[in-house]
Amino acid sequence: MDRRLVLVVTALSFMTVSPARAADPTPTAALPTAASLATARGLRDKALTDDTGYEVLRSLTTEVGARSAGSPGDLRAVTWALAKLKALGFQNVHAESVTVPHWIRGDARAEIMAPWPQRMVVATLGGSIATPAEGIEAEVVRVNSLYELKLAKPEQVEGKIVFFGGHMAKNREGSGYGPAVAVRGRGAAEAAKLGALAVVIRSIGTDHDRVPHTGEMHFEANEKRIPAMALSTPDADLLDEELASGQRVRIRLRDDSQWADSTRSANVVGEIPGRDKNGEVVVLGAHLDSWDLGTGAEDDGAGVAIMTGAAHLIGELKTPPKRTIRVVLFANEEFGLSGARTYARDHAAEASRIVLGMESDLGPWWVYGLSSRVSTAKLPVIRALWNVIQPLGVEYMGNEASGDADVGQLYALGVPVFDLLTDATRYFDLHHTPNDTFDKIDPAQLRHNVACYSALAYMVADLDDNLGRAPRAEKAK
Amino acid sequence: MDRRLVLVVTALSFMTVSPARAADPTPTAALPTAASLATARGLRDKALTDDTGYEVLRSLTTEVGARSAGSPGDLRAVTWALAKLKALGFQNVHAESVTVPHWIRGDARAEIMAPWPQRMVVATLGGSIATPAEGIEAEVVRVNSLYELKLAKPEQVEGKIVFFGGHMAKNREGSGYGPAVAVRGRGAAEAAKLGALAVVIRSIGTDHDRVPHTGEMHFEANEKRIPAMALSTPDADLLDEELASGQRVRIRLRDDSQWADSTRSANVVGEIPGRDKNGEVVVLGAHLDSWDLGTGAEDDGAGVAIMTGAAHLIGELKTPPKRTIRVVLFANEEFGLSGARTYARDHAAEASRIVLGMESDLGPWWVYGLSSRVSTAKLPVIRALWNVIQPLGVEYMGNEASGDADVGQLYALGVPVFDLLTDATRYFDLHHTPNDTFDKIDPAQLRHNVACYSALAYMVADLDDNLGRAPRAEKAK
Repeated sequence: MDRRLVLVVTALSFMTVSPARAADPTPTAALPTAASLATARGLRDKALTDDTGYEVLRSLTTEVGARSAGSPGDLRAVTWALAKLKALGFQNVHAESVTVPHWIRGDARAEIMAPWPQRMVVATLGGSIATPAEGIEAEVVRVNSLYELKLAKPEQVEGKIVFFGGHMAKNREGSGYGPAVAVRGRGAAEAAKLGALAVVIRSIGTDHDRVPHTGEMHFEANEKRIPAMALSTPDADLLDEELASGQRVRIRLRDDSQWADSTRSANVVGEIPGRDKNGEVVVLGAHLDSWDLGTGAEDDGAGVAIMTGAAHLIGELKTPPKRTIRVVLFANEEFGLSGARTYARDHAAEASRIVLGMESDLGPWWVYGLSSRVSTAKLPVIRALWNVIQPLGVEYMGNEASGDADVGQLYALGVPVFDLLTDATRYFDLHHTPNDTFDKIDPAQLRHNVACYSALAYMVADLDDNLGRAPRAEKAK
Repeated sequence: MDRRLVLVVTALSFMTVSPARAADPTPTAALPTAASLATARGLRDKALTDDTGYEVLRSLTTEVGARSAGSPGDLRAVTWALAKLKALGFQNVHAESVTVPHWIRGDARAEIMAPWPQRMVVATLGGSIATPAEGIEAEVVRVNSLYELKLAKPEQVEGKIVFFGGHMAKNREGSGYGPAVAVRGRGAAEAAKLGALAVVIRSIGTDHDRVPHTGEMHFEANEKRIPAMALSTPDADLLDEELASGQRVRIRLRDDSQWADSTRSANVVGEIPGRDKNGEVVVLGAHLDSWDLGTGAEDDGAGVAIMTGAAHLIGELKTPPKRTIRVVLFANEEFGLSGARTYARDHAAEASRIVLGMESDLGPWWVYGLSSRVSTAKLPVIRALWNVIQPLGVEYMGNEASGDADVGQLYALGVPVFDLLTDATRYFDLHHTPNDTFDKIDPAQLRHNVACYSALAYMVADLDDNLGRAPRAEKAK
């Protein structure tokens, strides 16, 4: 999941809007038929006892595991996905080639040298340069945030290792992520401008486990590059304790990560064909890649599992919906959205026939909210759709969805989008860590997601009229 | 903490005995004086708001951290302890030399090679031999337990890597540890007898974190030696998933741990002198060493902190108790009890003047039980002591205590012992892992321990008559 969703979620969490209040029904909004609603309710209820999705996730995490862009696991994931979609009866299963960056994690070590020697648990951030072979040893200067770094004088930073020690807030919306993650992406670049030798950050996470949270960092062209690592939160605490002594704290970092040439991966696509409305599709997206430390269970194996499970249920219906359900498993979300960008570029001409985009990339946790982005005239339709999943405990959150990272690329082309919001309280405990493994997943919560997506996807695919085009986000967004 | 306590705890948890019912008061049991009881209640209540112990733990985990027997951290811990006890006003602060084994952890790697390649998170067990430099690759054969291994035919095991996959049960008493830990200590030796090349075990722990649990393993003289590693519980799950495919599973292990010569460490001792009863002491024990993966916060920095904090509170009284309170911070509990054995040997002649031994080595969690081991005639005294800590939620559990690993060595010399039982539900989530760090410790629970120990230690030190000698454990124990 990238940071954009989280900002949107924050905004939405302050506005619980009923679609009924938001607009008057108009004759242009043809509601779902009674038969369509009944079928959707049946899908919803069947999903609550169907573990196809959960078994897809077991298979992916067991048979592939870690699959960061360009790695051998990434290629195995593509092969796995093609085979899995075919085995589940999807049609038109194919791969669409994507060029992806290829960064190779090295062996990272970090130690406090003084005042009190301690080994720290770290992960080099994805995209970092390596240290020199002999490592980098320097005094630590601590700041909470990029803003606080900006206030520092160059002589406070030059020749030192900057420690970004700010904590991430934990809540249902995951809204702590947006403010916290800036130092991961840009901390090294900004610290380098002031003459820092390297950067360590408190992991962008809400756990207290001795596992680091990796994630993407980047430099713009021509920026000076320095290494960047994430400390596990207990190690960040330890560094804080040493700093609290008032003594100078020196640490030593070593890493031999490297960049390889860009390489090939693929978006993997499979369809449940509709019975007419030829060429119109509902896209269910998730990303196939993961970070390399865990087996990518919640991020985003769960999304792969949920969308595959939801489409599969629709595929088992005696009568398919009018439109096609297309599952798109995007390449490389984590490290620059290569898959989604390539998909949006290659399918721009088709965008007007993509009647809805949905994406699951906030973990398979309880769904508490639905937000939409459709023209005001279509809000009565949204109300009718929402009524089917409302009994699962889902609130309507407003008409300001924008898709998550991948489907957001389709929204930019005018594709209507729905966001299902999951309880992210635990999401950032596991996110991008070695701890993101299959044992953390609750099958009941995963099924709850499948139920919501399958019902919504079916109903939109079976509408007489499609949802039109999505209005653009206002500037303020 | 070693396994013996846990077995005792299991037995005790089935028998809630009131000391009042266990025996009639006799004239030989002089009860605590009213003044002594009042002072003990004051200590108890003061302890609940005193963070001396918690700050001792912060200091140990920050300024020393990991301190396995013979390591540089072990020596730093001895220096730290001498300075800390002196700074807190202890008298007769000194080190008593102990010879300790010295095993040096290497760089362990474990991978599943087939059917599906996956990296696993492992720790080599303390005392294991290294693999050959090229590693060991072989098919896995899974058993749950030593008993199940015993049922295997040699041809099922020979040339293979044995995976002990049994799970540990989680409960308040920590009673899952005893049955589970046998494979850690003896799995390699028993598997080697059947021709296995190496052993991996599911970590002896109750968490689901991607961190392994290390711990002691050993061979008897002349036994064939093979390497042994612990997989994190999610990695054991993963291995189980691959095995569930029915395909042959091959793994590869590599490690370069080594044995160094035995070296010197020390038991560190400090006293709060009593006002008379010369030569009689109450011993408060904990172990100063830790395993090497975490910073030894709960195991057993907490014990060091609790006992130091409890004795320090007694030292702040205007009138000291009759007898001396002696804090003994034992060397090397984890890897063969060298410190406690040396102490018991060197102090055997003094044993009759040690009127009580208590030890904290089950974590700084809520205390729920007190068990004692004194002669039946002294049970009315125990009842009076217990009455002072009962308001803290402590049950009396019976007269079958035997000390934990270290103080158990004194019990074997006839020293009366009390065991305070803590809620161990979380203890084995952290035990022997990288996750055993200061941030996991709840200061309120740590203070709860200090309150119990300080009140009990004071009252026993201030009795007119001592508690006599402890009866021997019956054979059935």
